Amino acid sequence: MVGPPTSGAERYAAMSKSRLESFSDGVFAIAITLLVLTIAEPDNYHLLAHQLGSRWPSLAAYVVSFLIIGIMWLNHHTVFGHLEHVDRTFVYLNLFLLMTIVFLPYPTGVFGQALDRGTGETTAAVFYSVTMLLNACCWVALWLRASAGRRLLRADFPEYRRLKMTVLFTAGGAVYAVAIGIAFASAYACLAFHAALAAYYALDPLSRGADRSADGASDRP
Amino acid sequence: MVGPPTSGAERYAAMSKSRLESFSDGVFAIAITLLVLTIAEPDNYHLLAHQLGSRWPSLAAYVVSFLIIGIMWLNHHTVFGHLEHVDRTFVYLNLFLLMTIVFLPYPTGVFGQALDRGTGETTAAVFYSVTMLLNACCWVALWLRASAGRRLLRADFPEYRRLKMTVLFTAGGAVYAVAIGIAFASAYACLAFHAALAAYYALDPLSRGADRSADGASDRP
Amino acid sequence: MVGPPTSGAERYAAMSKSRLESFSDGVFAIAITLLVLTIAEPDNYHLLAHQLGSRWPSLAAYVVSFLIIGIMWLNHHTVFGHLEHVDRTFVYLNLFLLMTIVFLPYPTGVFGQALDRGTGETTAAVFYSVTMLLNACCWVALWLRASAGRRLLRADFPEYRRLKMTVLFTAGGAVYAVAIGIAFASAYACLAFHAALAAYYALDPLSRGADRSADGASDRP
Amino acid sequence: MVGPPTSGAERYAAMSKSRLESFSDGVFAIAITLLVLTIAEPDNYHLLAHQLGSRWPSLAAYVVSFLIIGIMWLNHHTVFGHLEHVDRTFVYLNLFLLMTIVFLPYPTGVFGQALDRGTGETTAAVFYSVTMLLNACCWVALWLRASAGRRLLRADFPEYRRLKMTVLFTAGGAVYAVAIGIAFASAYACLAFHAALAAYYALDPLSRGADRSADGASDRP
Repeated sequence: MVGPPTSGAERYAAMSKSRLESFSDGVFAIAITLLVLTIAEPDNYHLLAHQLGSRWPSLAAYVVSFLIIGIMWLNHHTVFGHLEHVDRTFVYLNLFLLMTIVFLPYPTGVFGQALDRGTGETTAAVFYSVTMLLNACCWVALWLRASAGRRLLRADFPEYRRLKMTVLFTAGGAVYAVAIGIAFASAYACLAFHAALAAYYALDPLSRGADRSADGASDRP
Repeated sequence: MVGPPTSGAERYAAMSKSRLESFSDGVFAIAITLLVLTIAEPDNYHLLAHQLGSRWPSLAAYVVSFLIIGIMWLNHHTVFGHLEHVDRTFVYLNLFLLMTIVFLPYPTGVFGQALDRGTGETTAAVFYSVTMLLNACCWVALWLRASAGRRLLRADFPEYRRLKMTVLFTAGGAVYAVAIGIAFASAYACLAFHAALAAYYALDPLSRGADRSADGASDRP
Repeated sequence: MVGPPTSGAERYAAMSKSRLESFSDGVFAIAITLLVLTIAEPDNYHLLAHQLGSRWPSLAAYVVSFLIIGIMWLNHHTVFGHLEHVDRTFVYLNLFLLMTIVFLPYPTGVFGQALDRGTGETTAAVFYSVTMLLNACCWVALWLRASAGRRLLRADFPEYRRLKMTVLFTAGGAVYAVAIGIAFASAYACLAFHAALAAYYALDPLSRGADRSADGASDRP
Repeated sequence: MVGPPTSGAERYAAMSKSRLESFSDGVFAIAITLLVLTIAEPDNYHLLAHQLGSRWPSLAAYVVSFLIIGIMWLNHHTVFGHLEHVDRTFVYLNLFLLMTIVFLPYPTGVFGQALDRGTGETTAAVFYSVTMLLNACCWVALWLRASAGRRLLRADFPEYRRLKMTVLFTAGGAVYAVAIGIAFASAYACLAFHAALAAYYALDPLSRGADRSADGASDRP
């Protein structure tokens, strides 16, 4: 964003990154919490046990989307940890990223309810996967803006990790395109695929490498 | 707000500005996230693809309002960056500003659904534009409170930028009055006009000037 | 809350107050934003202008509750600014206070809709006023916990202001009891009374005194 | 999470704990606020007083869940106060813990409405208690991850308290299993049992011991 045009500028730019980070954190926290509103209330309390039981796909979609948003929050933190500062374009790309994350409760609700009812599952699975694909594109754009030419990166961020992360983010886009294909075969398989992707991103070797370094181990190329 | 009447007062007043800022950030983050609740759930899962397709105006209204709130958040940050401190009147004007922002999901939902159904579009577009006009008036009031006589501004904020921002904010009010006129001609044109305004505010030359300065370039009158 | 039983305890207790403050800020920010969900969506888009017009009492209730929560947030900040530290009982009383604030969207929605429909207004006005009375009781309890024997107050907080604030908070309880009486006479008068109380708390002489002092003026008894 | 692989790593890891804490705070604050949406709106304003009166079980469930989340927030703060740092596994366990907390509004709404209607109470009470049991398991896992071998604990955290807290958290799991049993006997007794558990956790001797120490008293084994 903008800073005053005088001596305080550098200090202010630093605050700017932290304010962007905490605004994003707030949006992540709210999106992850609103997910619970996507599970349809029971409408027949005489058959409550049966109704709750038949909502397990909604619950599964809730759990998957919760983990996806939670892991994205971690990734967001990781990316921000590598930045020296932010610029206006990065702020806007971050806004588009947040827009896809905040939107996720809607396709989650549609997906869960389509599976609950056994109607429109393919459409719902495609809709969910397309949302995730858009999200992956925003991640690629955000990362390229930060890393191309090391524009916003910290000086001590190793070059080999920049390349690995670029590959990882770009692969994300391709993988969600695969998810759309799976949706046409089976909506349940598509949901399982999204769960597996979340687990993969939670465990990916790149972050584990970085984690070791935070524990004090060396992390050289 | 208030501070203790003793030596700690000045330091406390400074914290006050930062707490106002983070409270506002929270409100922005929640308002931008609640927008997703304005998109009506499908009611017929047998025609899910058709129903989701026919909701594109709701989606468009969601995107426009999301960008508007996001850009307002940036502007809010910009304005706060120019302030030395805040006073009680400023705090109340900020509260009125937040009230119009937090209200935005309601006219967004009405606008989107009116377009989805093809009924009541003109009324909905006027309603949306009036909300934005009230919002613009709050921005003018907030800015004048801060900038008139340089009451709350930092000493190093250049005078020429104060005048430019005053013009910009006041023009905002006039432009949203135009949006009301457009609403009577075409609701879709009105939505497009709001999108264009958001894009303009995202790109406006004033902020670009400030951005350059944050990158280290000089920014003299 | 609790702190580690060693040398770091004092520093941790200080953080504890600030974390309580920021948790409370978050709750205030969310409660004030959820209020917009209390305005019923139009159900007939053929009569949209008429429907939106007939919802003005809901809008008025929204505005009043928004200002009430906003001003309470300011008062909360004022009270916390006078505290040296917090203890566990204070934390629980603060939790009860937040519970009444977070509940406010419910009676606000009921009040607004009862006025919109012209049915059940007295009940709704009483319900709203009882909620506010409970809230006022929580404020009294919170303040007494902090101020009785100057338990949690900063050393430099003047004694005469302690007494004035005690009177003010206690009077708040009595005044909301009056609001319940007014509800039986007229629901609209009751809503106007709540608006007037919000305005009074926004302008009250005590805070203005403190505000002057924050601007550097002296503030002696 | 991850930190840069260079000298700044230790400082960044510290920020990581505080960012995890503030993200969690945000989620707690939103979950506690969303609870109010679980109370069903009146549907007949001609019988408003009667309808509001018959919703007292929903109100009671709201109060119990509010206090549970509030007290969990305090416990969360307590646990974090004892940590030197966090690791990736802890972050994921914390995410699972938040998932159960964020889910709580759903069983709260189901429980309250089942009691309001006098239908499906047993199922609803079991559903609520199972959610709490899952939550208790997450607490155990989170605590064991932090405390086993003192992996993440501060050096000055006394060993005797580590053992006491381990017992306390594990007992929590057992006690919620009892709650499931009570649900089969009486849904109202089950709700009262959950309220009593919340009160117990609010008053438990362990935290009181820590509280004394924060007030300056000694706290030795």
